[in-house]
Amino acid sequence: MHCGKNPDANVERAITGIKKLAKRGAQIICLPELFKDPYFCQEDRDKRYFELAEPVPGPTTKIFGKVAAGEKVVIITSIFEKAERGKHYNAAVVIDANGKLAGKYRKMHIPNDPANHYDEAYYFDPGNLGFKSFKTAYAKVGPMICYDQWFPEGARAAALKGAEILFYPTAIGFPSSLARNLNEVERDAWITIQRSHAIANNIFVVAVNRVGPESRIRFWGSSFVCDPYGRVIAQAPRDKEKEVVATCDLSLIKQKKRDWPFLNERVKVFS
Amino acid sequence: MHCGKNPDANVERAITGIKKLAKRGAQIICLPELFKDPYFCQEDRDKRYFELAEPVPGPTTKIFGKVAAGEKVVIITSIFEKAERGKHYNAAVVIDANGKLAGKYRKMHIPNDPANHYDEAYYFDPGNLGFKSFKTAYAKVGPMICYDQWFPEGARAAALKGAEILFYPTAIGFPSSLARNLNEVERDAWITIQRSHAIANNIFVVAVNRVGPESRIRFWGSSFVCDPYGRVIAQAPRDKEKEVVATCDLSLIKQKKRDWPFLNERVKVFS
Repeated sequence: MHCGKNPDANVERAITGIKKLAKRGAQIICLPELFKDPYFCQEDRDKRYFELAEPVPGPTTKIFGKVAAGEKVVIITSIFEKAERGKHYNAAVVIDANGKLAGKYRKMHIPNDPANHYDEAYYFDPGNLGFKSFKTAYAKVGPMICYDQWFPEGARAAALKGAEILFYPTAIGFPSSLARNLNEVERDAWITIQRSHAIANNIFVVAVNRVGPESRIRFWGSSFVCDPYGRVIAQAPRDKEKEVVATCDLSLIKQKKRDWPFLNERVKVFS
Repeated sequence: MHCGKNPDANVERAITGIKKLAKRGAQIICLPELFKDPYFCQEDRDKRYFELAEPVPGPTTKIFGKVAAGEKVVIITSIFEKAERGKHYNAAVVIDANGKLAGKYRKMHIPNDPANHYDEAYYFDPGNLGFKSFKTAYAKVGPMICYDQWFPEGARAAALKGAEILFYPTAIGFPSSLARNLNEVERDAWITIQRSHAIANNIFVVAVNRVGPESRIRFWGSSFVCDPYGRVIAQAPRDKEKEVVATCDLSLIKQKKRDWPFLNERVKVFS
């Protein structure tokens, strides 16, 4: 989805989208990273942005808890979290189909890249909960966030904890100011690395990105779902909003784990 | 390359290929997995195949050491190694451009899949040297072997040890007996996961496969080189031999490490 400057309007549009998706049969619905707010990490540093943070659970989980229970859907969303002892996290929450919080994840990999408009290290403390898998009404889900996408460690850890589907709420795009010939190369690499997490871990992967221009970044959309063989089974366009529904046949996970038992046969050498 | 039943003929053809490649300017040359022998791990278990094993260093490294020194090229090859205390390994050796052994790697991930004709666990002990990077005259290289390709752990470990180019001598293909609709899906997944190692670690990746039918497997060729952005910069066909030369601009590694410093920013959670 495209995220505007008005948080209330973003929330309203997200709810409208969720209801449309639920009517189409969607069971687990994921929103882009920090969808409620404009992507403030691309702006000049300003302490006032910390006022956008809220507790988790808090106002936003309350609103989406009601929507989840009403529509009987799982909702995965990302919230700027105001936490204990003055800490702030980039959090992903999983709200179960009964409206209750199934779990919370705090972004572990924080990009520290002001030059390219991802000045996240100024706003977010690194996650302190580790990588996670949460049981929901429809599947075990492993939520991570955006920059985590580039690291096989997170995908592996969530899969080892039982995740059947990884969800990555995302805010990634091209710098608006540059006509760089690496643009398409980076978008393709972003798809490739996530397909590889699906392949390496015998699971589904879902990436849900912002789309369209916002200040200094033109978000590249291209949200997609891929299966345990790394096949892209649904994808949104790169330049406009789309509500994408994909059917994830969880029996494929078993089939692929039997054929290619990577989780069991891996050598434990990472440090 | 295609590997026939006669080890001497395979060695002879490999040397001819290496000399042709050296004339074309190749500096580091990699042969397919166990190129000297037919891929015996697809046959019914037979103790006589152990007679193909040889010490490393040994006769084959001696032959290719002379070729490497003569042509001033680095040669990476894979050998069925007869080792101490009755152990047998699937080994990759790196022979430097002066003909001396730069290092040895022993395959860490051993496929145990007789049904699909990769009955390697019967013949090979799991490697006991860990993942490696070796300095050579032209680049720091991280040799791994075939099934290692599916595991991000190995690529990460070799990159952390300084490897600039990963080399995977390989023997992978379709079962000859089946017209499976997963064939192309698996070949594509094989390319995708290796491209992801390049992306995740800011390095080059080279996969060198057998090609053509041998007994129960039709090896799918498709050897390729990809750059740190995951771009395939050279590729052999899937159905015939080809001597592929690619130029790996090592300055791209620095550029990408600066833009996307994944190795520095990774969270150490694997176990």
